[in-house]
Amino acid sequence: MSTENFSGDAAGDLESVLATLPLVDHHVHGASSGELGRGEFETLVTESDRPIPAFMTQFDSQLGFAIRRWCAPVLGLPAHAAPEDYLARRTELGAAEVNRLLLAAGGIGRFLLETGYRGDDVLDPAGMAEASGRPVHEVVRIEQVLEQVAASGVSAAELPGRFREELARRTADAVGLKSIVAYRHGFAFDPAPPGDREVVLAAGRWLSAGEASGQWRVDDPVLLRLGLWAGVERGLPLQLHAGYGDPDVELHMCDPLLLTRWLKLIEPHGVDILLLHCYPYHRNAGYLAQVFPHVYFDVGLGVNYTGSRSDALIAESLELAPFAKILFSSDAWGPAELHMLGAHLFRRGLGRALRGWVDAGEWAEEEAVRVATMIGVDNALRVYGLEAAK
Amino acid sequence: MSTENFSGDAAGDLESVLATLPLVDHHVHGASSGELGRGEFETLVTESDRPIPAFMTQFDSQLGFAIRRWCAPVLGLPAHAAPEDYLARRTELGAAEVNRLLLAAGGIGRFLLETGYRGDDVLDPAGMAEASGRPVHEVVRIEQVLEQVAASGVSAAELPGRFREELARRTADAVGLKSIVAYRHGFAFDPAPPGDREVVLAAGRWLSAGEASGQWRVDDPVLLRLGLWAGVERGLPLQLHAGYGDPDVELHMCDPLLLTRWLKLIEPHGVDILLLHCYPYHRNAGYLAQVFPHVYFDVGLGVNYTGSRSDALIAESLELAPFAKILFSSDAWGPAELHMLGAHLFRRGLGRALRGWVDAGEWAEEEAVRVATMIGVDNALRVYGLEAAK
Amino acid sequence: MSTENFSGDAAGDLESVLATLPLVDHHVHGASSGELGRGEFETLVTESDRPIPAFMTQFDSQLGFAIRRWCAPVLGLPAHAAPEDYLARRTELGAAEVNRLLLAAGGIGRFLLETGYRGDDVLDPAGMAEASGRPVHEVVRIEQVLEQVAASGVSAAELPGRFREELARRTADAVGLKSIVAYRHGFAFDPAPPGDREVVLAAGRWLSAGEASGQWRVDDPVLLRLGLWAGVERGLPLQLHAGYGDPDVELHMCDPLLLTRWLKLIEPHGVDILLLHCYPYHRNAGYLAQVFPHVYFDVGLGVNYTGSRSDALIAESLELAPFAKILFSSDAWGPAELHMLGAHLFRRGLGRALRGWVDAGEWAEEEAVRVATMIGVDNALRVYGLEAAK
Repeated sequence: MSTENFSGDAAGDLESVLATLPLVDHHVHGASSGELGRGEFETLVTESDRPIPAFMTQFDSQLGFAIRRWCAPVLGLPAHAAPEDYLARRTELGAAEVNRLLLAAGGIGRFLLETGYRGDDVLDPAGMAEASGRPVHEVVRIEQVLEQVAASGVSAAELPGRFREELARRTADAVGLKSIVAYRHGFAFDPAPPGDREVVLAAGRWLSAGEASGQWRVDDPVLLRLGLWAGVERGLPLQLHAGYGDPDVELHMCDPLLLTRWLKLIEPHGVDILLLHCYPYHRNAGYLAQVFPHVYFDVGLGVNYTGSRSDALIAESLELAPFAKILFSSDAWGPAELHMLGAHLFRRGLGRALRGWVDAGEWAEEEAVRVATMIGVDNALRVYGLEAAK
Repeated sequence: MSTENFSGDAAGDLESVLATLPLVDHHVHGASSGELGRGEFETLVTESDRPIPAFMTQFDSQLGFAIRRWCAPVLGLPAHAAPEDYLARRTELGAAEVNRLLLAAGGIGRFLLETGYRGDDVLDPAGMAEASGRPVHEVVRIEQVLEQVAASGVSAAELPGRFREELARRTADAVGLKSIVAYRHGFAFDPAPPGDREVVLAAGRWLSAGEASGQWRVDDPVLLRLGLWAGVERGLPLQLHAGYGDPDVELHMCDPLLLTRWLKLIEPHGVDILLLHCYPYHRNAGYLAQVFPHVYFDVGLGVNYTGSRSDALIAESLELAPFAKILFSSDAWGPAELHMLGAHLFRRGLGRALRGWVDAGEWAEEEAVRVATMIGVDNALRVYGLEAAK
Repeated sequence: MSTENFSGDAAGDLESVLATLPLVDHHVHGASSGELGRGEFETLVTESDRPIPAFMTQFDSQLGFAIRRWCAPVLGLPAHAAPEDYLARRTELGAAEVNRLLLAAGGIGRFLLETGYRGDDVLDPAGMAEASGRPVHEVVRIEQVLEQVAASGVSAAELPGRFREELARRTADAVGLKSIVAYRHGFAFDPAPPGDREVVLAAGRWLSAGEASGQWRVDDPVLLRLGLWAGVERGLPLQLHAGYGDPDVELHMCDPLLLTRWLKLIEPHGVDILLLHCYPYHRNAGYLAQVFPHVYFDVGLGVNYTGSRSDALIAESLELAPFAKILFSSDAWGPAELHMLGAHLFRRGLGRALRGWVDAGEWAEEEAVRVATMIGVDNALRVYGLEAAK
């Protein structure tokens, strides 16, 4: 679709181009399919998995203020609408209409949907395509496939082979892979591929424990490395959660610099690595993206959660990395406010940074337009092999 | 006192509210009780404990420039007065009058005074109340109590019990506790409570060494953990020095993220944890404050020492944390310039950040006023149980 | 030369003083002596040592944009000239004229040239003095001297003594030393001086391996510590690469805070330590420069590579460190664009930070001029003992 690539025909000024840029949201999840009460809504707009304390509301946060400021008008309310008015209006419209309005307001060109987290609670690829009217491509979570194979009944010796087969089957039409090794172990793992024998031993322990508990959460570093290396062998672009996330993360163990040796080991395999979010280690990610040809990054999740401060975060992401190595994502999951704000705050923050440099006489405006289009659209189309789809 | 809580009646605009907000300085020490010569003054406006090198003056720093800019007029001098003129004026006025003028200019509503560091060199709670005309509450330093019990003559077996008794006695009227485990060991400690046997063994070693040397500086990680866990049992809000401080700190070992496992372990105990200062790890502290209901933070000490850059530091503190989880402190100790500037720079920096968002149409002004009041006053009143005192 | 020291006669306003300040570039390498084709040029304007991927150009980066904006006019082209036009003009002028123009445009007062990296590919001190018309002083790389002694044929037992002799000889006229322990091992080394026996053992292993391979790259931590401590004994100001660099670095192991214990151990020896670059750990470096009298830092390399964002980086460097402890460097190596931009972006970024504070009424303009002169000129003259040369 020709409107997806603005590189060749920067027709407007920076702000008008940015306002309509058909962003590729290269890491996103489905929008909530059902109605959301206040308690549930609030727990979905924080990375905390604890109940919201009685002394506070999650609306009193950068994200909460951004929802009231930017999403309220999309739902037909005044800017800064009170939380109760906002949620009442949400209920009045119904989940389907709320999703339709907010997804349309986001103006996303295409979604790369990661389907491995609580897929039953949110729209699936078909549902997202219908709600947004935009193409949706799938990104498969490695650890979910591994857990499903384990739960399906398999011996320790069979696990590695069955997992690789299932990964191939599940990704036949996928555009990318995702790993959450950051959540399950952190990045301080042995960078080498695990040996066959240690994999079978670790698989034996895990399968025994799983059969006893009925729980199949993989957090053994040997098995996580099996997953990562199988992902590298599969050859699709590989997304890694890095930095900021829920309390499962030990944040200091998710500094992407801890991946340095692993990144060097996999470099000959020709797989692109996409470091997601990275806050507060996004400058470190920019370094990796400069020195390693196969490393890319975005500041997705952090943009939504820093709200009015997201312009500073986006500006910080524009330091060391070549512009061909920076991408856009929202990492939205659940409330479509996150899908809409991810796009809106990105357009706003990138526009502010670039406009400042244009107005200071440092950048030519047509170059700012070109860089915005690279970061928002073209880099993702190239990395995920979607250029033919244009 | 009704003027302490502005949440319900935002009468003025942001700047006028901020200018008169009766800030709760939730972590501060006494002002110097005696006169300060130039050498002594300079060593009190740096975190270095080394002599000021002959080739420089500590006045040539962000803090030094802020003193000349903002404190000089309070003492009746022109802004940017020369250091020698400033110190001469200080001597001319005398310590009591300097304290009175600067504490009044700070406009603090109430002080939560940590009394555990060189308490004989600075005003005690009664002295601070008299000099400022404002209420003062005490915060007790855990390690000081432990050291005093050890020095009082006690067996290793008795130490844990005697320490807990003394901690209860000393905190009968206190509003909070403070730990300096950051200075004495850093945060890479075993998060579990220490076992009785290892405590007695460690106490035995410490008491023997102390009796030999006459020094009672606790830095054994087992005994520091005894102190921390006794603090948690005591149930008062617990302040932890984090990040930036004097050269005793190994700064990278004071990243509050290193507390993650300990924070999870103590979460069921219902004690609020207040991470102090945190620079340059304040974004990490904001993450912890978002995901853990019992974690709060401030950027106290760093505000004073970054002077004209403190607005950037304050803006960075307004990212991930819900607004109910951010507090104000000065961490002033000694020269009342630190008490005054802590308040002044905080008002200025918070005002700039919020004003920017209001002027950009992102925040409603009454919401900015409400958030400023939460951060500057109400959050501390709630956490420390001082709301009844209003 | 009296024009080198502006402290005493701040004749103009901030911008005019900054524009002509004869900066001391206290860590820089030679400019390329030969012609540079596009491929070679692009690989010299990134810290990556990998080939530039086919899908991108290194011109699409902050540094690439800064070259087109600021260097193109120096070569007689319009601002924002296309990369191909820029490189064609470069070829047309020839390397000598390009160097002459760009070095003149940088306006450096004197160069402290580190000669230990690929010295045959760039101008030597005499060549730099001729191309720039400015004085050049030498900084000697410790590890290079050690490697040259090893390669010269020496026994393990002789190595330490021969190395110290050669270091003394090589630095007879040098103004400083430089260590790249960051690249070869990182900063997590035993801070104590190595014992004689372990040095001889390590030297034996290294010499055997070197004789077999013909390669003399020192990366043994014992031998690197031998080099560092010999540098301390030599007594010259000692530069340490810290933070950002090429992919040889494991960046998280180059946080200067990891040097804390070593800095304490060497403090009594009276040697000044200059932490170079430090990105993204420059705030940590500012802390060390505040608390340790013998620690200085700059944000050299990061300024060039962050281009339009370098003003933010420079502002961040103006936080904790006393102004007497901050220096200027470009760390340029190769294309004279790096020499010119290092100076230009530094003048621009420092000017913006200081102008903002002057215009806000926080700093007096003559004080801003004085601080700019300290950071850009006087601190380096003092540290390197060049004041007599003025």
